[in-house]
Amino acid sequence: DYQHVQVPFEITLWIMLASLAKIGFHLYNKLPSVVPESCLLIFVGLIMGGIIYGLNDKSPPVMDSDIFFLYLLPPIVLDAGYFMPSRPFFENIGTILLYAVVGTIWNVFGIGFSLYGICQVKAFRLQDVSLLHNLLFGSLIAAVDPVAVLAVFEEIHVNEKLHILVFGESLLNDAVTVVLYKLFRSFCEMPTIKTVDIFAGVGKFFVVGLGGVLVGLIFGMTAAFTTRFTKDIRVIEPLFVFLYSYLSYLTAEMFHLSGIVAIIACAMGMKRYVEANISLKSHTTVKYFMKMWSSVSDTLIFIFLGVSTIGENHEWNWPYICFTVIFCLIWRALGVLVLTFFVNRFHVNTITGKDQFIIAYGGLRGAICFSLVFLLPDFHRKKLFIAATTVVILFTVFIQGMTIRPLVDLLAVKRKRESAPTVGEQIHIRFLDHLLAGIEDISGHWGQYYWKDKLEYFNSKYLQKILLREYDQPKSSIVLLYEKLERKHAIELAEAGQLGHAPSHPSLLCSVFLCSNNDRTVIKDKKLEDTLNPDILENIQEILARNLYRIRRTGPAYNRHTLPGETEPVEHAKEILILRHKSL
Amino acid sequence: DYQHVQVPFEITLWIMLASLAKIGFHLYNKLPSVVPESCLLIFVGLIMGGIIYGLNDKSPPVMDSDIFFLYLLPPIVLDAGYFMPSRPFFENIGTILLYAVVGTIWNVFGIGFSLYGICQVKAFRLQDVSLLHNLLFGSLIAAVDPVAVLAVFEEIHVNEKLHILVFGESLLNDAVTVVLYKLFRSFCEMPTIKTVDIFAGVGKFFVVGLGGVLVGLIFGMTAAFTTRFTKDIRVIEPLFVFLYSYLSYLTAEMFHLSGIVAIIACAMGMKRYVEANISLKSHTTVKYFMKMWSSVSDTLIFIFLGVSTIGENHEWNWPYICFTVIFCLIWRALGVLVLTFFVNRFHVNTITGKDQFIIAYGGLRGAICFSLVFLLPDFHRKKLFIAATTVVILFTVFIQGMTIRPLVDLLAVKRKRESAPTVGEQIHIRFLDHLLAGIEDISGHWGQYYWKDKLEYFNSKYLQKILLREYDQPKSSIVLLYEKLERKHAIELAEAGQLGHAPSHPSLLCSVFLCSNNDRTVIKDKKLEDTLNPDILENIQEILARNLYRIRRTGPAYNRHTLPGETEPVEHAKEILILRHKSL
Repeated sequence: DYQHVQVPFEITLWIMLASLAKIGFHLYNKLPSVVPESCLLIFVGLIMGGIIYGLNDKSPPVMDSDIFFLYLLPPIVLDAGYFMPSRPFFENIGTILLYAVVGTIWNVFGIGFSLYGICQVKAFRLQDVSLLHNLLFGSLIAAVDPVAVLAVFEEIHVNEKLHILVFGESLLNDAVTVVLYKLFRSFCEMPTIKTVDIFAGVGKFFVVGLGGVLVGLIFGMTAAFTTRFTKDIRVIEPLFVFLYSYLSYLTAEMFHLSGIVAIIACAMGMKRYVEANISLKSHTTVKYFMKMWSSVSDTLIFIFLGVSTIGENHEWNWPYICFTVIFCLIWRALGVLVLTFFVNRFHVNTITGKDQFIIAYGGLRGAICFSLVFLLPDFHRKKLFIAATTVVILFTVFIQGMTIRPLVDLLAVKRKRESAPTVGEQIHIRFLDHLLAGIEDISGHWGQYYWKDKLEYFNSKYLQKILLREYDQPKSSIVLLYEKLERKHAIELAEAGQLGHAPSHPSLLCSVFLCSNNDRTVIKDKKLEDTLNPDILENIQEILARNLYRIRRTGPAYNRHTLPGETEPVEHAKEILILRHKSL
Repeated sequence: DYQHVQVPFEITLWIMLASLAKIGFHLYNKLPSVVPESCLLIFVGLIMGGIIYGLNDKSPPVMDSDIFFLYLLPPIVLDAGYFMPSRPFFENIGTILLYAVVGTIWNVFGIGFSLYGICQVKAFRLQDVSLLHNLLFGSLIAAVDPVAVLAVFEEIHVNEKLHILVFGESLLNDAVTVVLYKLFRSFCEMPTIKTVDIFAGVGKFFVVGLGGVLVGLIFGMTAAFTTRFTKDIRVIEPLFVFLYSYLSYLTAEMFHLSGIVAIIACAMGMKRYVEANISLKSHTTVKYFMKMWSSVSDTLIFIFLGVSTIGENHEWNWPYICFTVIFCLIWRALGVLVLTFFVNRFHVNTITGKDQFIIAYGGLRGAICFSLVFLLPDFHRKKLFIAATTVVILFTVFIQGMTIRPLVDLLAVKRKRESAPTVGEQIHIRFLDHLLAGIEDISGHWGQYYWKDKLEYFNSKYLQKILLREYDQPKSSIVLLYEKLERKHAIELAEAGQLGHAPSHPSLLCSVFLCSNNDRTVIKDKKLEDTLNPDILENIQEILARNLYRIRRTGPAYNRHTLPGETEPVEHAKEILILRHKSL
């Protein structure tokens, strides 16, 4: 009864094949270090496509664009958005947007017009390809693909800034691609094009992009709000993260907004609140499942790319295909050079020549182009476009993807630092942030730090109160362990009858120290304490208690929104009373 | 562009509704403690069905049987199988099988024949319902539903044996239900029934049940084998657990075997090997996601049950429906009484009267009956059957489900023990197992313990070698922490220059003790040690080393398959050498 179970059975088998292929590559340790996984997967796809083609004698099924956009792409983008390092992203948001918007438009028109120029050469027999068709082709071939970029850049470990520039561009150019692609497609079907249509197209940019952000943020905040109430049923917490982000993607797609932008905004918006609300185990599950899902989607996409390449839906035309590859390379290189020139004039931390080369060279094309070209309306040169797109994708993924790692080594591009930042560094970064926000505030320059600080203030004052659960903030395991140890020690002390003469602060501190250190040197301190006069101890205790209070009181002054001495004297007295009460 | 995203959008919305309903119930703490969640969910479904019916003025969509059997049921059964407590299950496997096979057949024929009797009463106007149709109806209404049983029994916390008896029966009766249902359905379509067909039906029992077990075990072992090779890509480990169990279900369904039995065999078979192979985080993800998935499926099923109840596909006939409910209760009670009488004659640990009552009363019907009745071929009384099935389900879930908790309290049925068994208990249980296996072996009685021991032997000798990863067995976090502490301590000792005069065994033991205890009493031992003569220390060390070796050597004698003194003298000497080498 195969008919009955066909759909789920075949889906499961495809996923299984993808997973097994992944395991297979990793069994041979040398292979993945030379060839990127994406290439290997496309290769597996090519072989499978060849087998299907050989057995059935007809073209194997191509990747359905609906399946790609509705089921395979969202997990990857969600994963990318959720694990996006927000600090470098927002620090470079201007540059990223410039590359994503202006750079992509530059590439689209550059490639479109120059290919139209090629079509005018009579010897190539391409005179029937109109300018609009060339621009349409340019709009789908120009966009850098996030899936392909992620697959390659995750393996070569370049520095954070370079990574976020290429990757951020590949994500955010979706809005531009969607608009241009749809614009040119509708122009192709229109008899005449009016000027007003072109202006409407420009206006659409903002609607599609900002609309996506809005939809994403709304769903993200709703998700955060929902997880406030899951205290009693921890087990469905991870579900909400997936459901809301998927809904944001679908809603954006429904209104013809940019789904990719929406899901990224949703993931980045909810991350911090959801993480604070859900349990540690739920969070492990969310992270793990996201990685797993995106990894499987990724694998499936590359395998399908390979399978879909085989078949008879290609029309081969040497000049058009070769010039497409060449123009893709040239226009991207030119675009990066020109845009970086402007960016560097306004930044202290400039983008070096090496970085520019990697940015230009890392412009990989992938499954999005492929799906878009199949979505084209039928016209007589569609097969030529499919062939050209396939060649560009294979060229970028294979040739550029395989050579980028040696090039990074050769150019000695700055790598990602291996170790996590130390506590000292973190404190200094935080301190400098506050300092710069203050300087910007005083100088009246509303820069990046000023807005960041305002946002942080708004967040702590309003958003957190609505979105975060009020009580029991989840504690990290180390804090829980520490509390447990302290409680245990207190019980032991009480059982040993040592609490009779009121434990002094230093002895408590000391015993905590003993708890955590297990060292013989502590024992000496213990003896030292025993030999001290109780009066002196009392004295030390008082000094310590007062100082500890003072430290705690001056603590909030680090925050720009409270002034030192803002706390009322009545509160002060009350707190000291509470403190005393506790210490007795 | 709603058409484009309709399918995933609606699925996501349904899941979202289910999750939100779950959160809603838990916000009011009192509600779930009185009314089982399943009732509340059906109630939500009824309201939603009413709204849809009111707005559209046509019957709301009924739950698609395909969706139920292919997508909603497998996660619940997988969860049930994976978390099945294997010890009580295998200890009571005979009783469970008796209830599941003989009990279900008893119920099917009892209900079928007595309803046929009712149909002969002229006043009821049911004379057109043939005996075969009544038996067919009996076959779908007789089976206890695992989803409903699980939903209710997880909340009332009866003792483990009682729980596994009802739950095990509800899972394993699937094979019987599948066979009888298909048998009667094909008989209904046949013109004449030959005796050979009936015998073929009996033979099918074994094929369907054992075939399911076989398919499940094959996929389970393959899954365990696959996870041997996932060391480098931990992130897709959880996937294999889900993929292989789902494949086992689909494969079994494809060959008309029992999918439920297959997925349970797969889950129980792979659990132990997979757990040993995959990383701790993967395991958390597997457990969490399984619980999450089954919880969502469960919620959806009950909501759909409610929605599908509303509508115009019911034919109301008071006597038939009332007698169905009554016969369901009577035949189940009788069946349990008779079967338990036989079971108690062969067991020391008998099933008490109270337990029997709960077993009979816990025979809830659920979504499986509902899906089966919609799968019936069209005939003129189908709507009557649908109405009767709906009433039986609602009656059992609402009336029985809501009263079973007070009844359990009233009868003072033995509850589940709250605490986990102590280490002492565990050791004694293990010891008794070995002892009983030995006694059974000597007395020539091939009982439960004998087979368990044989299986354990086969497992450790062959299966583990094939299915488990060879090196780096995953260690529990406590062992890792202990190793870390010990290593740290050794480094500290070395830095303090105390390793100069060779650390004696007792001192090492003592310092480990210090590490883990943090107690002042240890310090005294430390001093004691310092005052000991080095000669005496040497002596103690040797005695300890020898004794420790002896304990370790005699250790394997606990295993029935090695005799004491089986190790060669050469090996003995070699091991002592190694021991010495380590201690120096």
